[in-house]
Amino acid sequence: MTRFVIIGGSDAGISAALRARELAPGCEVTLIVADRFPNFSICGIPYFLSGEVARADDLAHRKAADIEAQGIRLLLEHRATGLDPQARLVEVQRPDGGRDRLPYDTLLLGTGAVSIRPSLPGADLPGVFPLRWMGDTLSLAAFLEEHRPRNALIIGGGYIGMEMAEALTHRGLEVTVVEAMPSVMTTLDPDLGGRVAAELTRHGVEVLTGTRIEAIEPDGDGLAVHGSGGLRRRADLVLTVIGARPETSLGAAAGVETGIAGAFKVTRRMETNLPAVYAAGDCVETWHRVTGTHTYLPLGTTSHKQGRIAGENAVGGTREFQGSVGTQSVRLFDLVVARAGLHDADARAAGLSPLSVDSEHWDHKVYYPGARRMLIRITGERDTGRLLGAQIIGAYGTEVSKRVDIVAAALHQDMRVEDLNDLDLSYTPPLSSPWDPVQMAAQAWVQHWRQGEGRGV
Amino acid sequence: MTRFVIIGGSDAGISAALRARELAPGCEVTLIVADRFPNFSICGIPYFLSGEVARADDLAHRKAADIEAQGIRLLLEHRATGLDPQARLVEVQRPDGGRDRLPYDTLLLGTGAVSIRPSLPGADLPGVFPLRWMGDTLSLAAFLEEHRPRNALIIGGGYIGMEMAEALTHRGLEVTVVEAMPSVMTTLDPDLGGRVAAELTRHGVEVLTGTRIEAIEPDGDGLAVHGSGGLRRRADLVLTVIGARPETSLGAAAGVETGIAGAFKVTRRMETNLPAVYAAGDCVETWHRVTGTHTYLPLGTTSHKQGRIAGENAVGGTREFQGSVGTQSVRLFDLVVARAGLHDADARAAGLSPLSVDSEHWDHKVYYPGARRMLIRITGERDTGRLLGAQIIGAYGTEVSKRVDIVAAALHQDMRVEDLNDLDLSYTPPLSSPWDPVQMAAQAWVQHWRQGEGRGV
Repeated sequence: MTRFVIIGGSDAGISAALRARELAPGCEVTLIVADRFPNFSICGIPYFLSGEVARADDLAHRKAADIEAQGIRLLLEHRATGLDPQARLVEVQRPDGGRDRLPYDTLLLGTGAVSIRPSLPGADLPGVFPLRWMGDTLSLAAFLEEHRPRNALIIGGGYIGMEMAEALTHRGLEVTVVEAMPSVMTTLDPDLGGRVAAELTRHGVEVLTGTRIEAIEPDGDGLAVHGSGGLRRRADLVLTVIGARPETSLGAAAGVETGIAGAFKVTRRMETNLPAVYAAGDCVETWHRVTGTHTYLPLGTTSHKQGRIAGENAVGGTREFQGSVGTQSVRLFDLVVARAGLHDADARAAGLSPLSVDSEHWDHKVYYPGARRMLIRITGERDTGRLLGAQIIGAYGTEVSKRVDIVAAALHQDMRVEDLNDLDLSYTPPLSSPWDPVQMAAQAWVQHWRQGEGRGV
Repeated sequence: MTRFVIIGGSDAGISAALRARELAPGCEVTLIVADRFPNFSICGIPYFLSGEVARADDLAHRKAADIEAQGIRLLLEHRATGLDPQARLVEVQRPDGGRDRLPYDTLLLGTGAVSIRPSLPGADLPGVFPLRWMGDTLSLAAFLEEHRPRNALIIGGGYIGMEMAEALTHRGLEVTVVEAMPSVMTTLDPDLGGRVAAELTRHGVEVLTGTRIEAIEPDGDGLAVHGSGGLRRRADLVLTVIGARPETSLGAAAGVETGIAGAFKVTRRMETNLPAVYAAGDCVETWHRVTGTHTYLPLGTTSHKQGRIAGENAVGGTREFQGSVGTQSVRLFDLVVARAGLHDADARAAGLSPLSVDSEHWDHKVYYPGARRMLIRITGERDTGRLLGAQIIGAYGTEVSKRVDIVAAALHQDMRVEDLNDLDLSYTPPLSSPWDPVQMAAQAWVQHWRQGEGRGV
């Protein structure tokens, strides 16, 4: 009977546990969870802090009792403090401070990531919050209740910064977002990041790009924030959401190799270099299917997949992770922005020669009421015509998110841009066109490519 | 300089003309259009008749002037009356009754389909209308304006019948739909057809299944309709929408071979058996990618693709049609129903051994407001685990249509059901889950399959 021990109770750990129990009902699965929030949807945190989700507990994908009902042993508020890969033992510290040694046959490191704290004076002051885990969330929620801040300054214009800007605006705060890079949402091309910023501005958010925060200091009952270009803002609340780094201390100390961004190196079976030790989720390198190389791309969707594969292999399977294609989607106010694959800069960084072509299309036949325009930017490879990626920006309610999934499925199969036209996609006038917008965008790309390069078809 | 003559100005013909001009700007393209409505969206007809689209002209994908601006010669209200494949001549009748003989180097038959008229007494009475082309539409629109019918009876519960039931209800008529088969929408499984019928019923439409219409007769200033089981209904208006058959008379008379349902036989390059004669759209057999055989499946999306390929090959290309996977989508009131691939009965008819598994999922994380349930029925092959198809039924606004496109893309690549879990699909709490509903449905299928069949993974 396999004893499968999992360190970490978020997406990767839970997925692994469920999969192992599904495939090998005889296996003994123990899940070590540092806090008391197993299987919480950390992607949902902004919607709790906005007030749209009433209770923090609603963010749980599953309740602890549901997890235990699957025959999984849950050790909540237990910290894994040591790992002996020779003896196959994990040392844990119980909530009462005592220690246990748990034997394992197979082990999963699903230790996730931790917020990068900005190294600037005042980053530890009261009123300055990181935001990644439920602990952070409850601290911030308590602060919002008790102090009723009227305004907030968010350091970092990535996904979480943008979502929190909307969330706090929804809650009635005046919000400023400060991003050091020339544009927000650097996972998109800069001009598309600009469109996102404009949507936030339209809803009253102040967005400052190319601005570096230099210091935070107390100012009466709030904070004063100083930045480059003479920036000075008073804020009742500061959020620092500048990114995350893999949490690998336990594994690395035991000899697990790390690589890109300090994340654990893993095979596509999610094996580390240590026998019987798997790793998955935000603590590992991710194989990118489009570039064929490893990258660090911590996302919940990927964590679920990697965890499921690790769980299968931990009980005797041989499944391989089929890779990320870098799909991401976000809704901000009335806008949805989604991407899959590589944008221009990604592609150049990967040594490819990209061509990106924009086109705008109605989400459905314009004669039917309510049609709205979406911008689709297709990126393909100049030499081969291979599809490299797409970015889509359009109104909420126009199936932008699942349209990028058509591209994601095509990228998964290594299709050419032209091949998108072969897909038999659904059409009815209230929902699309005989050529879906994704296909019209592909046609625009191919036409541009053929003309620009003097190519045949 | 290639002289490319096209008979038919709907989806296939126009797509071919545009593609030929795009690739070979020197070619001479002549489009023979029997009516004065080139490139109209016949899928949009219900939305014009409902009153949601103000003017019939709004249904044009492109205006005649736009088509001519592409260098395409348009012969409107010209009827092709003869074809001499040896001499490579098409005989046309001009609007003034005179005849011309047009020489061609390559020819496309894009003659489409015609409504099947029910063979029952009274089918030709005033007040009884077929509905396929713009001519039918304008006749019906005029009747609606002049006679202000208070109620309508629709013979046929397929896509058009269902859409017209909604359209006429929207316009304020009392509507009855009569379908001879045991369920409406026979492109779906019967119980899903039942859900569609229930949605119509909820909006006041009377839906009668398993009922055959036997006669229509005049009744005062309206019509009396008689059917099986003692049915008798008075109706101010009767629509007959029981299907379509390929219009092949011109080509067949000249020796073009026909096959399934009497449609033209074509290669995957859209070639007929006659030299330099292509055919595409609702008048041809369609290669089905999932079964690997030909079928008759007249759809606008397919017509566009086949036309584009025929246009490319008519000016020297060698592209092949990559097949239909049977994708269809419809919105009826607040419901969207979409399918791709084969359902159980389709699969059995193709000699396969299908297993279909239902599961229900929220369209997005349930903690975020507005989440709604969708039913996903996955059909896979018992022997191999191969994905055969999916049917999805859910609320308008929950990306049902583009979710079925994920399945369509997977079918295109001959994936297994389990492989859907490898796709890197987009997620953000307001729009999906870390596993998209399509993936959760795939997991439900695999679990059922594995247990039911005692299989490994």
